[in-house]
Amino acid sequence: MIIAGKTTLEDLPRACPILSRKTNRQYGDTLVRVVDVQGVHFGADRPIVIAGPCAVESRDQMLELASLAKQAGADMLRGGAYKPRTSPHEFQGLGLAGLKILREASQETGLPVVTEVMDTRLVEQVAEYADMIQIGSRNMQCYPLLTEVGRTGKPVLLKRGMAASLVEWLGAAEYIAKEGNLDIVLCERGIKTFPSGEYCRYSLDLNVIQAVRGETFLPVIVDPSHATGVAAMVEPASRAAVEFGADGLLIEVTTGRRTASAPKCDAAQAINPEQLRRIVEFAHAHQRRAGPAP
Amino acid sequence: MIIAGKTTLEDLPRACPILSRKTNRQYGDTLVRVVDVQGVHFGADRPIVIAGPCAVESRDQMLELASLAKQAGADMLRGGAYKPRTSPHEFQGLGLAGLKILREASQETGLPVVTEVMDTRLVEQVAEYADMIQIGSRNMQCYPLLTEVGRTGKPVLLKRGMAASLVEWLGAAEYIAKEGNLDIVLCERGIKTFPSGEYCRYSLDLNVIQAVRGETFLPVIVDPSHATGVAAMVEPASRAAVEFGADGLLIEVTTGRRTASAPKCDAAQAINPEQLRRIVEFAHAHQRRAGPAP
Amino acid sequence: MIIAGKTTLEDLPRACPILSRKTNRQYGDTLVRVVDVQGVHFGADRPIVIAGPCAVESRDQMLELASLAKQAGADMLRGGAYKPRTSPHEFQGLGLAGLKILREASQETGLPVVTEVMDTRLVEQVAEYADMIQIGSRNMQCYPLLTEVGRTGKPVLLKRGMAASLVEWLGAAEYIAKEGNLDIVLCERGIKTFPSGEYCRYSLDLNVIQAVRGETFLPVIVDPSHATGVAAMVEPASRAAVEFGADGLLIEVTTGRRTASAPKCDAAQAINPEQLRRIVEFAHAHQRRAGPAP
Amino acid sequence: MIIAGKTTLEDLPRACPILSRKTNRQYGDTLVRVVDVQGVHFGADRPIVIAGPCAVESRDQMLELASLAKQAGADMLRGGAYKPRTSPHEFQGLGLAGLKILREASQETGLPVVTEVMDTRLVEQVAEYADMIQIGSRNMQCYPLLTEVGRTGKPVLLKRGMAASLVEWLGAAEYIAKEGNLDIVLCERGIKTFPSGEYCRYSLDLNVIQAVRGETFLPVIVDPSHATGVAAMVEPASRAAVEFGADGLLIEVTTGRRTASAPKCDAAQAINPEQLRRIVEFAHAHQRRAGPAP
Repeated sequence: MIIAGKTTLEDLPRACPILSRKTNRQYGDTLVRVVDVQGVHFGADRPIVIAGPCAVESRDQMLELASLAKQAGADMLRGGAYKPRTSPHEFQGLGLAGLKILREASQETGLPVVTEVMDTRLVEQVAEYADMIQIGSRNMQCYPLLTEVGRTGKPVLLKRGMAASLVEWLGAAEYIAKEGNLDIVLCERGIKTFPSGEYCRYSLDLNVIQAVRGETFLPVIVDPSHATGVAAMVEPASRAAVEFGADGLLIEVTTGRRTASAPKCDAAQAINPEQLRRIVEFAHAHQRRAGPAP
Repeated sequence: MIIAGKTTLEDLPRACPILSRKTNRQYGDTLVRVVDVQGVHFGADRPIVIAGPCAVESRDQMLELASLAKQAGADMLRGGAYKPRTSPHEFQGLGLAGLKILREASQETGLPVVTEVMDTRLVEQVAEYADMIQIGSRNMQCYPLLTEVGRTGKPVLLKRGMAASLVEWLGAAEYIAKEGNLDIVLCERGIKTFPSGEYCRYSLDLNVIQAVRGETFLPVIVDPSHATGVAAMVEPASRAAVEFGADGLLIEVTTGRRTASAPKCDAAQAINPEQLRRIVEFAHAHQRRAGPAP
Repeated sequence: MIIAGKTTLEDLPRACPILSRKTNRQYGDTLVRVVDVQGVHFGADRPIVIAGPCAVESRDQMLELASLAKQAGADMLRGGAYKPRTSPHEFQGLGLAGLKILREASQETGLPVVTEVMDTRLVEQVAEYADMIQIGSRNMQCYPLLTEVGRTGKPVLLKRGMAASLVEWLGAAEYIAKEGNLDIVLCERGIKTFPSGEYCRYSLDLNVIQAVRGETFLPVIVDPSHATGVAAMVEPASRAAVEFGADGLLIEVTTGRRTASAPKCDAAQAINPEQLRRIVEFAHAHQRRAGPAP
Repeated sequence: MIIAGKTTLEDLPRACPILSRKTNRQYGDTLVRVVDVQGVHFGADRPIVIAGPCAVESRDQMLELASLAKQAGADMLRGGAYKPRTSPHEFQGLGLAGLKILREASQETGLPVVTEVMDTRLVEQVAEYADMIQIGSRNMQCYPLLTEVGRTGKPVLLKRGMAASLVEWLGAAEYIAKEGNLDIVLCERGIKTFPSGEYCRYSLDLNVIQAVRGETFLPVIVDPSHATGVAAMVEPASRAAVEFGADGLLIEVTTGRRTASAPKCDAAQAINPEQLRRIVEFAHAHQRRAGPAP
């Protein structure tokens, strides 16, 4: 019984020669290649914390949250200008206006900003405003988008597809690397499993952190907000991710105030600034230990 | 414990008002809206069989396989000109040259052709050569691509993401429908589960066929080649899909001859023309029974 | 990175020397060893249909359903006397009284009966009343129970665990075989996957039917009632299973009458006698084709 | 479309009235009921570490490992006398002789011991030698076994089935509780998911820890050895589990010496005493924070 398309980790040196540890022995078994985003160093001496709202909803909202994130000690900002939503009838993001707000928030706080791009035709536009470009989970295998993002030369945050094997994830990163861009940070954000929907949105797969470490030299961070989908789990999940060896965290925050208008997306998983402050403190206190490759 | 982003089938009328049966009572509980692709009718009186190679590899290969598919009784042709591959170092398809070969194969046989598009910038080009545009499993949630394909007005074959819930799948279809294009055929192609890789490539999820029937009026077909990944399973899987109520099949074929050059993709799941002939015979003998909505 | 406990199909000849095709070449690539249950032959010329209620609830209910199953053409009866339930506060079955009712139903109809055992201490008791002993999905890896059942010498119906790999399933069968009992019929009943709970109870995994055929000579049947959990799916699922090569079906039925008392378990998946009659007709019309091993 | 047997967390007060927080408001939202095993307190002020070999293989091996575990600071011993193995031809444990060795190891070190029982007929025997009885993952839904173990009055370690929903897991615990035994400690040990087998044995599901805390007052620990299946992941997984709120750890250790005879089971996931010492130190330094219920 021969199964088509069965690519295993043993095939990695052939499938991903640019990114596989086995074909890049200069990194040894555990060294991480540092990715520099405007002075923020992923894979260096301590975990990085990226924080911000799910979506940029208004100038006021974004500037306030950026300021709160800065005060809480976050290293970078996040916020969606182009939002992938399950239904086309839901809020799709502010687009270019959102990008401009993000730029302003970055300038006000001095924190670099990461935001998502979904359309090959908008890569140039997003690259103009963002310090780091995010490929979302839904588009991890949209290869023309990966290629285009690779060509910008900007650092890339590559989220794992919700059903991506490790080989598929690193294969996606290889598309970016093939364009000469090695400034890639991987991001685990939860996988689809049988419990998804019972008590969490996805299953946080921390095992993959050590497996990434063993197979490639790219830094890897964790998104505890999407990986749990439950605000009360974000803080323990963040600590757990750091202890498991993550090079950083990507976290959704909210002001914590009840506002007249309902939040436009994913309110149930956003934490408040005080929780963020505790997470930052925990993360920054951790000297990244170069763990042995599994 | 509140979980963010938990969309259930109860939310469908709100998430997918254009495609939900509940908001389109003119289709009743079981009626299917027929999709016409150059005279090939999906959702009408009998299952449709689409056949062809995984990728267009050369003019000779494609014309030969098209002719064999025609002789075997297939209704339509398939073949990849732009191929999504796990590694960027693998064969990526012939691109425009492949589209021209597909067009020629269609003219020679009189069979309409479906082929995949992955890049928003290439939608117009692919629409020029194809009779039906395929959105592949990896790009099911690439929303700008869905929107762009919706705008062409061409019939669309929307494959299910390998981890897509029914709500997510229908939400993706709604992006196409929102552009005024209702000529959408859904295609189940296997889901990622724990057995994936042990004895099959994916798990063929036939239950979803009846669930699709219950929730929307769009036709739904099955790809037994990817859903099993094992050539010997394709024939029984095809019969099973038809019996479960599928409106058609999407099948990979090969000449069955051993050639000097190794096949470029997914050889292990391609069947030979004689097997295809038996499948077509089985499918065409089945008057589609409008089964009761589950 | 070495993973503990990773047993693959390549290890099967060592893990299951009694049941593996590779170590029992007398069965060739496709022959099935027929299991005879009081004249009902699994793996012989045509699929077998076993039907009955989820649980024996009363003498009247069981005798009526047995009679209806007989009229519909079923080959064997099913019914739970000892019922595994998620909560201990739910109906647990009639126990010994239920076994006696099953025996009576068998005598009245002339159809052999299969029923489940969960407790090593009750194997002897169940073996006294049943013609075939069922090991349920939850107990597929309760090895002392398998050993005990193997020792009775009675035919065994071994349901697949809801998360069992093929190797684990055949390993469980090997425990029975090791006691000298080869009269084992395997039963696929759906696996736990991410869609479980959205539109079906489990995912019907038909791919495994062909994989079983390739790896062992034991007959394999399908339980479409549990594998879907939706009454409207049972009939198409039954036809699909037969077309995929199943040696039989295990189906839950109900009288279809609304009764004063609510049914005690799994009412939503039970079909009525008329649907059963159509399924039996379909199954019995199929000469089992000895398909090629995948 | 009505799905049979769909039990959700909303049904918990009805399915598990003895163990649900909602029906036992004396524990409030976060209080844990302490389980006392010969002076070792689960759910009290700090996480508990249980350590030992996968299986008791000999008196010398067990006594040496017990001594090493004691020196490393472990609170309790583990070791299998009756071992559930995928193949019946693999080592099945020393049985009663193994229990006696465990008892001796307990007496020598002063550490209580936990060991697994699989057979209802052996519950009394195991209860005589063990301080805490383990129900393994494979038998989580063997209800007669749960009932029997509940009747012994001994503390029980209830491992989660590898495909068990939270409702199914708590339902299993309720069987024990129904016999009047509330001394139950839950143990997460990894779930079956699509990555299982690629880079890990199972997926460590830490999200469930907080979900358990929200739904019941029982303590919950984590088995990082089985949940990863990779020795190099055990230490980071242990720290992550503690940070996520686990009340303890269950860890497999080995002497780290290469011996003449190959280890009899699961060698690839066992850690050495020095790693165990670091884990114990980390765990014991953590005052258990009663986290808010999710």
